[in-house]
Amino acid sequence: DARLMVLAGPCQMESRAHALEMASALKEMAAKLGLGLVYKSSFDKANRTSLSGKRGIGLDAALPVFAEIRETLGLPVVTDVHDAAQCALVAPVVDVLQIPAFLCRQTDLLVAAAQTGRVVKVKKGQFLAPWDMKNVVAKVVASGNPNVLLTERGSSFGYNTLVTDMRGLPIMAETGCPVIFDATHSVQQPGGQGTSSGGDRRYVPVLARAAVAVGVAGLFIETHEDPDRAPSDGPNMVPLKDFASLMSELIEIDALVKKQRSAAGGVRSL
Amino acid sequence: DARLMVLAGPCQMESRAHALEMASALKEMAAKLGLGLVYKSSFDKANRTSLSGKRGIGLDAALPVFAEIRETLGLPVVTDVHDAAQCALVAPVVDVLQIPAFLCRQTDLLVAAAQTGRVVKVKKGQFLAPWDMKNVVAKVVASGNPNVLLTERGSSFGYNTLVTDMRGLPIMAETGCPVIFDATHSVQQPGGQGTSSGGDRRYVPVLARAAVAVGVAGLFIETHEDPDRAPSDGPNMVPLKDFASLMSELIEIDALVKKQRSAAGGVRSL
Amino acid sequence: DARLMVLAGPCQMESRAHALEMASALKEMAAKLGLGLVYKSSFDKANRTSLSGKRGIGLDAALPVFAEIRETLGLPVVTDVHDAAQCALVAPVVDVLQIPAFLCRQTDLLVAAAQTGRVVKVKKGQFLAPWDMKNVVAKVVASGNPNVLLTERGSSFGYNTLVTDMRGLPIMAETGCPVIFDATHSVQQPGGQGTSSGGDRRYVPVLARAAVAVGVAGLFIETHEDPDRAPSDGPNMVPLKDFASLMSELIEIDALVKKQRSAAGGVRSL
Amino acid sequence: DARLMVLAGPCQMESRAHALEMASALKEMAAKLGLGLVYKSSFDKANRTSLSGKRGIGLDAALPVFAEIRETLGLPVVTDVHDAAQCALVAPVVDVLQIPAFLCRQTDLLVAAAQTGRVVKVKKGQFLAPWDMKNVVAKVVASGNPNVLLTERGSSFGYNTLVTDMRGLPIMAETGCPVIFDATHSVQQPGGQGTSSGGDRRYVPVLARAAVAVGVAGLFIETHEDPDRAPSDGPNMVPLKDFASLMSELIEIDALVKKQRSAAGGVRSL
Repeated sequence: DARLMVLAGPCQMESRAHALEMASALKEMAAKLGLGLVYKSSFDKANRTSLSGKRGIGLDAALPVFAEIRETLGLPVVTDVHDAAQCALVAPVVDVLQIPAFLCRQTDLLVAAAQTGRVVKVKKGQFLAPWDMKNVVAKVVASGNPNVLLTERGSSFGYNTLVTDMRGLPIMAETGCPVIFDATHSVQQPGGQGTSSGGDRRYVPVLARAAVAVGVAGLFIETHEDPDRAPSDGPNMVPLKDFASLMSELIEIDALVKKQRSAAGGVRSL
Repeated sequence: DARLMVLAGPCQMESRAHALEMASALKEMAAKLGLGLVYKSSFDKANRTSLSGKRGIGLDAALPVFAEIRETLGLPVVTDVHDAAQCALVAPVVDVLQIPAFLCRQTDLLVAAAQTGRVVKVKKGQFLAPWDMKNVVAKVVASGNPNVLLTERGSSFGYNTLVTDMRGLPIMAETGCPVIFDATHSVQQPGGQGTSSGGDRRYVPVLARAAVAVGVAGLFIETHEDPDRAPSDGPNMVPLKDFASLMSELIEIDALVKKQRSAAGGVRSL
Repeated sequence: DARLMVLAGPCQMESRAHALEMASALKEMAAKLGLGLVYKSSFDKANRTSLSGKRGIGLDAALPVFAEIRETLGLPVVTDVHDAAQCALVAPVVDVLQIPAFLCRQTDLLVAAAQTGRVVKVKKGQFLAPWDMKNVVAKVVASGNPNVLLTERGSSFGYNTLVTDMRGLPIMAETGCPVIFDATHSVQQPGGQGTSSGGDRRYVPVLARAAVAVGVAGLFIETHEDPDRAPSDGPNMVPLKDFASLMSELIEIDALVKKQRSAAGGVRSL
Repeated sequence: DARLMVLAGPCQMESRAHALEMASALKEMAAKLGLGLVYKSSFDKANRTSLSGKRGIGLDAALPVFAEIRETLGLPVVTDVHDAAQCALVAPVVDVLQIPAFLCRQTDLLVAAAQTGRVVKVKKGQFLAPWDMKNVVAKVVASGNPNVLLTERGSSFGYNTLVTDMRGLPIMAETGCPVIFDATHSVQQPGGQGTSSGGDRRYVPVLARAAVAVGVAGLFIETHEDPDRAPSDGPNMVPLKDFASLMSELIEIDALVKKQRSAAGGVRSL
């Protein structure tokens, strides 16, 4: 079993300066913690609740920043793609293409992402059963790309609420793909603030601890130096100042869990 | 109150001949019933469960058929669009652009559809509360297009199941937009057959009667002369031979409901 | 098909005078409408959210009032029972014993109610699938009592919310038991006011119209002359002044639906 | 923080011999593991799906066995009570009275259990939000008994399915009551086998690991030497032969979590 991986960064790219600052800070923390880090940021929030919600600096402005982060900091990068045409444009400057949850069944997007040869990370739709992700994986693999990461980020549970079914983690792992738990979107309250989504970041450590104890390949955690002033997903993001202590506890749980699994002959005690 | 409208046709366009045959048959039934008809067919099923599921004849082949149906049969036409670039291509030959449920929050798609000037019909996502559709309407209207139709097609309810909350119909009607009830996708069992979605067409009349009694502007009903051999959504579609008798009953309920509302001074007894 | 039946009355028995007044008023309305009426009232609300919520006047005080309503007004009466021992005490003065939704799987209660020989009306639990009510019916029938009414009152849908799946009505009807739609508890928001349940009576007519159009044997509607001052379930109850106009519309829909079914040879167009 | 507690035993008491055998075996394992053990068994399964489902040996036969287990093995005992009258009968021979989930809002039962002075363990209803359990606690405490344990056992999630929301654990802990996670009923599929409930015991360790990592006072785990032949809840129960290894892993996770909390000054990093 590999060490725990984290995909982290602010929800959206706000500016070149902000991106470099965040990436540097996270790199330093990850190095101290011995933690595998992939830097995450979105160039475009394509499905904001409201037309007036900020969408990010856009594709053209973001691509050189992603390239700069990879070159100067040596960090791998992940970002969202929202239509097939974006995949080939984005692929040269990132390591992982992320398919948003609402788009996880859009065949053309999955195929275009697969054909870039980059790792394809697919978020499970809030409307999808975990066992149905095998069909999504099959679309990517049949397009010639076996490098798929699956992500749990909650299921619709009544209105304006998500619930995380921890059974989904081992069920998705049966595909053979590494499973990432998205601890910040899982506490989202979709549409919960009328014209934007709410959330409750107090439950990020709760769900993250649970997921790590179940056993995951990595975590996805959005973080910001001042979440309450962030242009999107503020209610969910973890304050940057709390990131290292949170990860430190999760790394300990992960190490114990992997030691137990190894002692059990590599088989989890299901 | 206007007479009941129905958007009907086979799930996907299978061939020019099949489309013209279905459209002619439906036109004849609608004329006998005094029913407003919009012909529906998809040129591409962009989110099939499996890569091997048939997607339809494609954009290029479908556009002239839509044009032919409008010209020779005089029927208005509705079809799905899946990315922003398709909107301007499709708009010249259809009357209504439909935004699929999974894509109902994709801002670029909504704006591009709005800018064609065609009626924009948005399906409520399975993951969205009915009161949150006002944000979707606002995106279209703020893009200069006030002609929006909203559609109910069920909400996620546990795994592989949808439930229709009839309260959603009047809640969406508060936006001022006409509300259409999609009676065939509402009985879908997403992913319920492993590598394709299941459904149970026995409940189409049940939910359609309920929705009409609550009060809707129209219905969306997929139909096929042989649903069990249709390339997609077969388990949900209504056999063409049952279409007229089903609509006939629904028209009677609709007439009664509108008479009652009129007697109550135009105000429904909420 | 029999004419539509309604089980109506205030949520709880507040006093002898109030009960007689409500029963008389409802009897008069039902007579004008040609509506079958069963008077409903609870002697004890055994599962209030809070210990300080009013529970009603109690078994001993209520029994003579039920007897008086039956004798002087000639109305059949329905009330809830909460444990097996109550059944034999209550049976002599009522026509229908109602099993509350939370208790619908308590075997001893079902058997004791069955053994009184009275009609047993069971509310489907908020946690139960409609097809699982056949097991509940079997418990009553196997105890020697074939007279069972089933009631839909909503299913749990996330937290503090219920949703009514209209497909549940024909599914429960497959047991052969008459199905009653509880239009007031179906709009309840359990626990939604912190220390009491909320609700939204604006949706009572919405759901009632839907259920009648689907086809039910009867409706269950709690009503009160001043719901906002009622000791329980106020947010859901229909004001008594609106009862007749609501029922009048529902009777028209019911008559149309039964005429259609009769024209179809007694078979609903499923 | 106290050491982890487990409430364990077979779903129902099958016979005196079986009970003593199970209790002895569990006592021995718990001693080796340094684990606090409360022996669990039901004298009556009062809400079986079907009338023909076995209910257990009954109150009269069970009481002396509970007394014997306490005396000869020195184990504390927990069992379910289903109506108010049972509480005083059962209290002398058990340490904890358990209120079943369906009955968690039955006021008389809660009050009667409270008045015995025994610890009252209440299972959260499948239809209840975790924050609404504070009202349940208040009923017991206001009846003079501050010793309440709360239990998570899953929430209704569509039909025939439960989901465990791990956020419910810290939310219920805000009442100040110890929170127990019921790892075997949480994997139940209510009514999932037609005339009995199904389940999937493979997910017991998954959910138990998650709950322990979040932080709980204890676990509730039903176990049996041959679950597939057990008279009830077989699909969920953990084979007795796997009990010690499962608990051993959970104890390690619990110890780590409590060390982390202690290092954080007693405050969980929420």
